[in-house]
Amino acid sequence: MRHLPCWFCKDIQSDYFMTNDTICAISTAPGIGGVAVIRVSGKESIAICSKLFHPHKKGKDLSCQKAYTLSYGAIIHGKETVDDVVAALFRSPHSFTGEDTVELTCHGSLYIQQRILELLLAHGCRMARPGEFTQRAFMNGKMDLSQAEAVADLIASTSEGQHRLAMNQMKGGFSKELKNLRKQLLEITSLMELELDFADHEELEFADRSELKKLASQIENAMLHLAHSFKAGNAIKNGIPVAIIGKTNAGKSTLLNRLLNEDKAIVSAIHGTTRDVIEDTTLIKGQLFRFIDTAGIRNTTDAIENLGIERTFQKIEQSSIVLWMIDAVDALQQIKEIGNDIFHRCKNKQLIIVLNKVDLIETQLDLKHLIPTNMPIIYISAKEGKNVEELQRKLTEATQITPTQQGDIIVSNVRHFEALNHALDSIHRVQDGLENNLSGDFISQDLRECIFHLSNIVGEVTTDQVLGNIFSHFCVGK
Amino acid sequence: MRHLPCWFCKDIQSDYFMTNDTICAISTAPGIGGVAVIRVSGKESIAICSKLFHPHKKGKDLSCQKAYTLSYGAIIHGKETVDDVVAALFRSPHSFTGEDTVELTCHGSLYIQQRILELLLAHGCRMARPGEFTQRAFMNGKMDLSQAEAVADLIASTSEGQHRLAMNQMKGGFSKELKNLRKQLLEITSLMELELDFADHEELEFADRSELKKLASQIENAMLHLAHSFKAGNAIKNGIPVAIIGKTNAGKSTLLNRLLNEDKAIVSAIHGTTRDVIEDTTLIKGQLFRFIDTAGIRNTTDAIENLGIERTFQKIEQSSIVLWMIDAVDALQQIKEIGNDIFHRCKNKQLIIVLNKVDLIETQLDLKHLIPTNMPIIYISAKEGKNVEELQRKLTEATQITPTQQGDIIVSNVRHFEALNHALDSIHRVQDGLENNLSGDFISQDLRECIFHLSNIVGEVTTDQVLGNIFSHFCVGK
Repeated sequence: MRHLPCWFCKDIQSDYFMTNDTICAISTAPGIGGVAVIRVSGKESIAICSKLFHPHKKGKDLSCQKAYTLSYGAIIHGKETVDDVVAALFRSPHSFTGEDTVELTCHGSLYIQQRILELLLAHGCRMARPGEFTQRAFMNGKMDLSQAEAVADLIASTSEGQHRLAMNQMKGGFSKELKNLRKQLLEITSLMELELDFADHEELEFADRSELKKLASQIENAMLHLAHSFKAGNAIKNGIPVAIIGKTNAGKSTLLNRLLNEDKAIVSAIHGTTRDVIEDTTLIKGQLFRFIDTAGIRNTTDAIENLGIERTFQKIEQSSIVLWMIDAVDALQQIKEIGNDIFHRCKNKQLIIVLNKVDLIETQLDLKHLIPTNMPIIYISAKEGKNVEELQRKLTEATQITPTQQGDIIVSNVRHFEALNHALDSIHRVQDGLENNLSGDFISQDLRECIFHLSNIVGEVTTDQVLGNIFSHFCVGK
Repeated sequence: MRHLPCWFCKDIQSDYFMTNDTICAISTAPGIGGVAVIRVSGKESIAICSKLFHPHKKGKDLSCQKAYTLSYGAIIHGKETVDDVVAALFRSPHSFTGEDTVELTCHGSLYIQQRILELLLAHGCRMARPGEFTQRAFMNGKMDLSQAEAVADLIASTSEGQHRLAMNQMKGGFSKELKNLRKQLLEITSLMELELDFADHEELEFADRSELKKLASQIENAMLHLAHSFKAGNAIKNGIPVAIIGKTNAGKSTLLNRLLNEDKAIVSAIHGTTRDVIEDTTLIKGQLFRFIDTAGIRNTTDAIENLGIERTFQKIEQSSIVLWMIDAVDALQQIKEIGNDIFHRCKNKQLIIVLNKVDLIETQLDLKHLIPTNMPIIYISAKEGKNVEELQRKLTEATQITPTQQGDIIVSNVRHFEALNHALDSIHRVQDGLENNLSGDFISQDLRECIFHLSNIVGEVTTDQVLGNIFSHFCVGK
């Protein structure tokens, strides 16, 4: 059973995290299926299920069965036969939660699923909260917090990239890396603190400062490497952000619908139809992109539309790639009008100029003299779908994410990224302290803060509130 | 392995019903869940799964495991770890299908479910067709056809009544009853046919005709009892049909929405808003009702609306209960105008007169002299919801279905009902033949037809086409 010592706050383990009772939930997707799985976990799980489960063969009572066995029988309550089920038995600690667990596979009707749950509750179970099975796995030391979080990511993953990220994290690669870092930090810390204990003997210096500087720098580099991986991790998890910008009526929404293969944005010939920022993701060659349709840029007195334009500029800031759509009919004029502004705003981005409505012009435009050299231009017709595939190819080229390998450690969780940045702040203060020959107790304090932030990632010093927040985003039944 | 002998047609078992290959499908509800179950069944199921499943403990290869055990491991393909899974092993004939079966419980992400299926297909499985696992259970003699059909009903059941019906049928109560009947019929038949073999010896009469008449009458009664249960069975399965009729603008759609607790029908003050017949079911005190909103009855030149009114009369025919809604403001006039027509059309139904819009009238109406004695009248305001509960109480009183008990044999399947009626026709011809001292070969022919129709219910003489049609209505994965 995991205890949650906390150095910086005095939170004690609340009732929320008690695991004395037995919980149950439907673990399979909601709705009607061929079969459904109802999971029961906790000290009383086998005893409670034994009251309801009647084996089809005599003498095969559930409570007498070995771990990792299946029993075939019926859920019977009084004269009512609810269903024929298969009961899978797991005994503590060899289960997902680490507790005794019974998984009942029943026919997947809504009535049966509901009725079995009702009977389990009537016999002493409690409905599991979202993520409570995984939370118990964490509390019982079956996995650390970053691995538990990976379980939720794994279940939510829809692309190969997302799946690989989550799987690596669940397998504990990241946790191991953090463990290494913390071990090194603890070594420095203990040396520093040993020095403090003998503070009277000024000549004593257990920790060789230059050696410490070298170690701190190594730790800093390792943490920087992890923090830098977040850009790629976030792109894989949430999609590479691509802003679609341009003047009103350039066809941005038409392109978005074309890229997403659905009618997400309202399209009309009226200038300024899109006021909200519309986002959605789609896979192109296995890479997830998050396309952001923005309000058209133009001078307008419409206050709401102006707010939209303001948000467009914010979205450029948040994007890796910007698609500037220009109405081919009006291209020269548009580039002259807002070109410099756009080039300036996108100077650290991948900017792709998309000339739309090429079906309406007769000759190819020569724009070379108006735009920076090597800036990619592509001629499309969003309405007709012409050259959209070429644009998709350009997009995959523009993504500078090196494909991740099985086993790569990549940070994809905002909470982890923030904790890493806090840890980096601490290690920078440690480095400053060493540089300026500050007293050991100052440096030691910063080292402990650094360890604290890393420990937060794996859940060793995490408050109940944070834990509650993390697990509440799980689905029920996991 | 079940063979399908067919006396009346020459259908042979087609490829559709071959069970030589190994099939797989996701058996849990579609969508994202904590876990999902992928079922693999067939001769190669364990061999195929062994190629993908790598146990976490060495030496615990799937193919060496005993039946009814769980193995914990990972689905690995080359360098790719797809997921940690639990593999449940069933060995022929002790599985749902009667074949070797592996059930893989994986994390319920769409990506993982899809990826594992892909790998199974790449390793020699075939995607299961809807209902194919149950079909194999039937082909392998694990259940008869009426039991297999009950599996689909069980999965679709949403009320206690539906569930109990399906469970009884799946448990084989109906099958047993049919088996009894067929046994008795076969006895008579063999006596009749023995007589035919010795046709030269006219004095010989193995079958005592009066004894045969008695037996035939017993069989007829048993079959009548089953056929009569269909009304109750159908009401439980599909809901007791309640037609809501009345003049246009009497508030029928408002009442329907009120009873269903949703906005199913479009409500407006315009006469003749409802043209289509709108149906939906809802549970009242555990009993399923199928409410049928109908087009208002009035003289109109609108051809489409007239069609609607025609259908209203058809729906009265098909209903057990009729709610005649009358606008209280205009009650006397309406009853005088169409009362006799309605009373005539509903003479074999439970008719309840519902006076609507009582909030608009000041004094209670005295309608006793206009309507037949003992006909229930209820005063409501559908718009305000006034007295609707009282109406619901009246509805449950009006249903003359005796509550079914655990174990009652009730026919709820149209196919079974039709087969029973055909069998009844045959037994009536047998009875006529015995009555009129017809020759044994005529009677024997009718007896065999009777047996054929009963055998059809349990699938012993059913054609591939009928089987294909039955199983195609299952969900995939069952």
